Amino acid sequence: MKGTKKQVIRPILSTDYTEGAHPAVFRALAATNLEPAPGYGTDHYCEEAAQLIRRACRAPKAEVHFLVGGTQTNALALDAVLKPYEGVLSAVSGHIAIHEAGAVEFTGRKVLALPAVNGKVTAASVMDWCQSFYADETHDHMVFPGAVYLSQPTECGTLYSLEELTELRAAADAYGLRIYVDGARLAYALACPENDVTLPDLARLCDAFYIGGTKCGALFGEALVFPKPGTVPHFITIEKQHGAMLAKGRLLGVQFKRLFQRDLYGEIGRHAIEMAHKLKDALAQEGYTPAVSSPTNQLFYTVSPETYKRLQEEGIGGFWSFEADGQVRVRFVTSWSTREESITRLISILKEK
Amino acid sequence: MKGTKKQVIRPILSTDYTEGAHPAVFRALAATNLEPAPGYGTDHYCEEAAQLIRRACRAPKAEVHFLVGGTQTNALALDAVLKPYEGVLSAVSGHIAIHEAGAVEFTGRKVLALPAVNGKVTAASVMDWCQSFYADETHDHMVFPGAVYLSQPTECGTLYSLEELTELRAAADAYGLRIYVDGARLAYALACPENDVTLPDLARLCDAFYIGGTKCGALFGEALVFPKPGTVPHFITIEKQHGAMLAKGRLLGVQFKRLFQRDLYGEIGRHAIEMAHKLKDALAQEGYTPAVSSPTNQLFYTVSPETYKRLQEEGIGGFWSFEADGQVRVRFVTSWSTREESITRLISILKEK
Amino acid sequence: MKGTKKQVIRPILSTDYTEGAHPAVFRALAATNLEPAPGYGTDHYCEEAAQLIRRACRAPKAEVHFLVGGTQTNALALDAVLKPYEGVLSAVSGHIAIHEAGAVEFTGRKVLALPAVNGKVTAASVMDWCQSFYADETHDHMVFPGAVYLSQPTECGTLYSLEELTELRAAADAYGLRIYVDGARLAYALACPENDVTLPDLARLCDAFYIGGTKCGALFGEALVFPKPGTVPHFITIEKQHGAMLAKGRLLGVQFKRLFQRDLYGEIGRHAIEMAHKLKDALAQEGYTPAVSSPTNQLFYTVSPETYKRLQEEGIGGFWSFEADGQVRVRFVTSWSTREESITRLISILKEK
Amino acid sequence: MKGTKKQVIRPILSTDYTEGAHPAVFRALAATNLEPAPGYGTDHYCEEAAQLIRRACRAPKAEVHFLVGGTQTNALALDAVLKPYEGVLSAVSGHIAIHEAGAVEFTGRKVLALPAVNGKVTAASVMDWCQSFYADETHDHMVFPGAVYLSQPTECGTLYSLEELTELRAAADAYGLRIYVDGARLAYALACPENDVTLPDLARLCDAFYIGGTKCGALFGEALVFPKPGTVPHFITIEKQHGAMLAKGRLLGVQFKRLFQRDLYGEIGRHAIEMAHKLKDALAQEGYTPAVSSPTNQLFYTVSPETYKRLQEEGIGGFWSFEADGQVRVRFVTSWSTREESITRLISILKEK
Repeated sequence: MKGTKKQVIRPILSTDYTEGAHPAVFRALAATNLEPAPGYGTDHYCEEAAQLIRRACRAPKAEVHFLVGGTQTNALALDAVLKPYEGVLSAVSGHIAIHEAGAVEFTGRKVLALPAVNGKVTAASVMDWCQSFYADETHDHMVFPGAVYLSQPTECGTLYSLEELTELRAAADAYGLRIYVDGARLAYALACPENDVTLPDLARLCDAFYIGGTKCGALFGEALVFPKPGTVPHFITIEKQHGAMLAKGRLLGVQFKRLFQRDLYGEIGRHAIEMAHKLKDALAQEGYTPAVSSPTNQLFYTVSPETYKRLQEEGIGGFWSFEADGQVRVRFVTSWSTREESITRLISILKEK
Repeated sequence: MKGTKKQVIRPILSTDYTEGAHPAVFRALAATNLEPAPGYGTDHYCEEAAQLIRRACRAPKAEVHFLVGGTQTNALALDAVLKPYEGVLSAVSGHIAIHEAGAVEFTGRKVLALPAVNGKVTAASVMDWCQSFYADETHDHMVFPGAVYLSQPTECGTLYSLEELTELRAAADAYGLRIYVDGARLAYALACPENDVTLPDLARLCDAFYIGGTKCGALFGEALVFPKPGTVPHFITIEKQHGAMLAKGRLLGVQFKRLFQRDLYGEIGRHAIEMAHKLKDALAQEGYTPAVSSPTNQLFYTVSPETYKRLQEEGIGGFWSFEADGQVRVRFVTSWSTREESITRLISILKEK
Repeated sequence: MKGTKKQVIRPILSTDYTEGAHPAVFRALAATNLEPAPGYGTDHYCEEAAQLIRRACRAPKAEVHFLVGGTQTNALALDAVLKPYEGVLSAVSGHIAIHEAGAVEFTGRKVLALPAVNGKVTAASVMDWCQSFYADETHDHMVFPGAVYLSQPTECGTLYSLEELTELRAAADAYGLRIYVDGARLAYALACPENDVTLPDLARLCDAFYIGGTKCGALFGEALVFPKPGTVPHFITIEKQHGAMLAKGRLLGVQFKRLFQRDLYGEIGRHAIEMAHKLKDALAQEGYTPAVSSPTNQLFYTVSPETYKRLQEEGIGGFWSFEADGQVRVRFVTSWSTREESITRLISILKEK
Repeated sequence: MKGTKKQVIRPILSTDYTEGAHPAVFRALAATNLEPAPGYGTDHYCEEAAQLIRRACRAPKAEVHFLVGGTQTNALALDAVLKPYEGVLSAVSGHIAIHEAGAVEFTGRKVLALPAVNGKVTAASVMDWCQSFYADETHDHMVFPGAVYLSQPTECGTLYSLEELTELRAAADAYGLRIYVDGARLAYALACPENDVTLPDLARLCDAFYIGGTKCGALFGEALVFPKPGTVPHFITIEKQHGAMLAKGRLLGVQFKRLFQRDLYGEIGRHAIEMAHKLKDALAQEGYTPAVSSPTNQLFYTVSPETYKRLQEEGIGGFWSFEADGQVRVRFVTSWSTREESITRLISILKEK
């Protein structure tokens, strides 16, 4: 058992991985459960899922590798695309920079922090950083910039626009950098009305990215895409070396096949965004304004310590940070599984205060 | 997609992870699929599963951590129990020594090879190795022995007896070593009539071991047990650092809870062993004698290249190694999911020759 | 051959490791050159040098290990004192954070950046960082703070006062951190009139620190001090593992023995500081004010691009950074080997403009 | 102070790094001690030394990097030439496999053990290993062979012939392996009448090798040669990352320049081999036959425990291993500094028995 406190409260709106799988995904697993299949992703489900993803990305030659979790995928993909003397540029608030227990550094790689604007890295800051780096006569004694880590959406729910991503690609090309996108919550980005970055855009503009499953309707799993084949020779061996290869790879193939059939991945995203809009509207009516302007499924609000305590007791939302004035920033997250009654429950708690 | 060859044959008797989960385990996942639960193993299912495992091990204070796969668990557990200047002793044929793509070395640790007798390490060889090590005046310039890696059953299906394990404990104590047991196929060891090592014995004699789920009826998952609490401070952070923490830890809790309820883990093991006996008997009638005397669910036979080709076409069994005389050593594996018809099919192929 | 440009200019005032060894140190090497001695630091010179250092530090039980270079010593010492789940707090401008090519990360450790005030870390910022860390409910998923990296003097030549170091010790104790001090230029700190931190203070307040030789009169070498014996079990093996053990350890013993005999280390420091004062005075007469108020042997001035070009041609001083307004920040460094004629030469160049 | 036992005896014939530098090398250091030079190997001495080495190797485009010690050079060079999914084949008795505290594994690389014949790897065993590897259908789950580690001379003083090295090159080419040669004692190999492998042969047949300085007349230092330029992009940064870059690189340049002027490296080797012959002859007269047939400067003899004790008291020779029958294998080593009186002293001790 991990952790010391016994958790008994059922969490609501606290994050997007509190339930198991979307029912349709679960049914696909059930239907194939007793079929024998070869291991390690060599089965036909993985091939079919990869084919659907290639089609969705309009990248017919892309390599698709299925992995179990996000931290694993980030550390593995970055290790695989970086050269030994390179590190990865990331927003100082990026997930790999803070919340992955140094998994990137554990593989010997340095995370090079860039300032974040609304959780985002800008092309200008990448250019500036690289220009300073190469202007420094002693840069052979420093970690070279090798890649830019982005997440779509970001840690605070914001989105890169197509224009921003295109500019980042230009900046990356100017300095020989790869672009890697962490798409843990990609379904929720793709479903936003505000979003103009499609899967084919990602495949065209990035060197590697992953399509998140764990937080977007799968029981577990992430699909790592290398749009250009041969990006990482012997990736399978590196994957095994990281302890990241699932014996029953078919479980990932079955799930991603279903997610990319009949637009399920799109549907999952749209439901969460619809619920996020309802939540925002309901909170607005109660006089709450978002602490961060997030168009996706993560919403940030500032509440009093008393309200925070009440929410905590009910298992609603999650702690984000303490504000300077003693207030508490709380995060509410919607997902494919969010029901309106949870929003109603939240509002009733907030009314109590 | 991984690998270059398209696999379409349904594998039979080739390994014990060709199907999904045992139906009872799958039902448990289905029944809890839409329940919200907190993440990272802090849910009540993990706690209940850990409690059942502690009871089965008669180790009321044991720490139990649930992980996804075997290579991951081996590399993580060894990294966690070794000191920086230590390596791990393993049979030269041990899984970590050969088949995990150097995952142990990837974390900076050396695997120190010991001779294997029937796939097993002996207490005498551990004692000899350590004695030579400390007798060498320059041993400060060498990797210290820190742990012994065993697997139960071993790579070739053999079993450590309680006497052997007790002797290994004494050898380990004589030189301050930890004992770690890889129990990827532990259910099949525990179910053998020949076996006299119980879960409480493992908990009493080892510093860490894992109870395999992936190959023993779970959809996926392994339960790592530290019989003595506090064996590894801040294990959770180290787990995260390895990219080994599952966001929806509850999936592992639900599965192991079910595996340890109503003796399901025992039942799974017994079915496979019964099937293995039937397979051995049927093969004996055809004049085949096992290449290795294995009492568990992995059986090794030597066949002609032509027969091997036929088996390969039908997806039956798996390649193990080439013999000096051009014959092929093949492995047949039974599991919770093995049906008699598969054995019948195998025999009919062998009759063809 | 390293680098692409052929260097022919003799560098002046550019750094403190442009010459070989202080003549007295060199003579000690010459006098003992043909004496046979056992290897790896087990010789009597190392023991005598360690004894002199223990005495100078008033730390009779201190462990002293002699190493070759600074980056090596930093990466090794931090790896040795950190636990697997810990990283090291460092000023964002710290040497390990920027100028060591990620040597700390290469060993799997994260450098956790703190804001720098005059190149220094404050006790308050350490306290704040740690408080935020432990207040975050998800901190088990983050790199724990394990040590604070300081350098005395800092990257920009400033000094920690005894009061500041004492406060840092209290902050470290409050959060279970070790303090490690990089003393690459320690002789020049110790010799400053402004300095009130002595070797016994370092031994009393730090868990590990190194007394720089390479930049302070030795041919090469650093003396790593663990004031408390047993701080790092089997350090020798970890040192070897890092490739950091010198076969002819006696070379380091001979040098540090001489540096700590008859106050040579003090004399070396005082000469450099005297020269630094002369340089400052001469530059002040030419109307230059230091860009950073540094009391030690590194002096920073802002010059026009034309002046910088002239200096570069003559090999005087070294590039530090470009200023926003196009001016160039240049660093001048004095050492045990600095002669007044170099200062005269510098001033004549500056007059030319 | 390293180690626990105080060593006071002056070691004789025990190894080839008991003294400082060859007087001519030391004089070169003395003559240049006060010359200012730029750091990190960008000085003209390094360039001149590299030029002399290129000429001696008849490899006009070779890259030459100067490093401090052998373990450091081995771990760095192998890390630099291996791809992430590769390990290094080495004789099971190779220095990197046993006596370097796992420095290769510390960088994440696996040492793949090959049987040793007279301390040597054979082309046949490399071919067999690789053939088995690629014949194994699961080899994607194993560490790929990436390089072969050899040492010239080997751990037990034997030599690869030109024919053997040529065959190893063919085997390496057949499987895409690099060849790396550890030349810690290369001077003594080159000076042997039995030797037919020259520096140009090494440059022609190997991908990387180092010319040992520490044990061959230098105060310290090794010259790593990449015969083909561009073998390792950004080697300098990788070197820094390993903590292996010497600030005062000029010290290595000055030494290697002298070693390769006026055939000093050859002279050093020849003196040691002449002394080895005298030692062998004297021991033969006393009835001792070598335990290993070594043509170089390391000689192995078996003595009684009593004799070993006497030798130990006098600091003559060094322990190698215990024999099964209780006898002790002792190693005697000659070098550039060996004097005949040491041999006389050894013989007088042996006569005592």
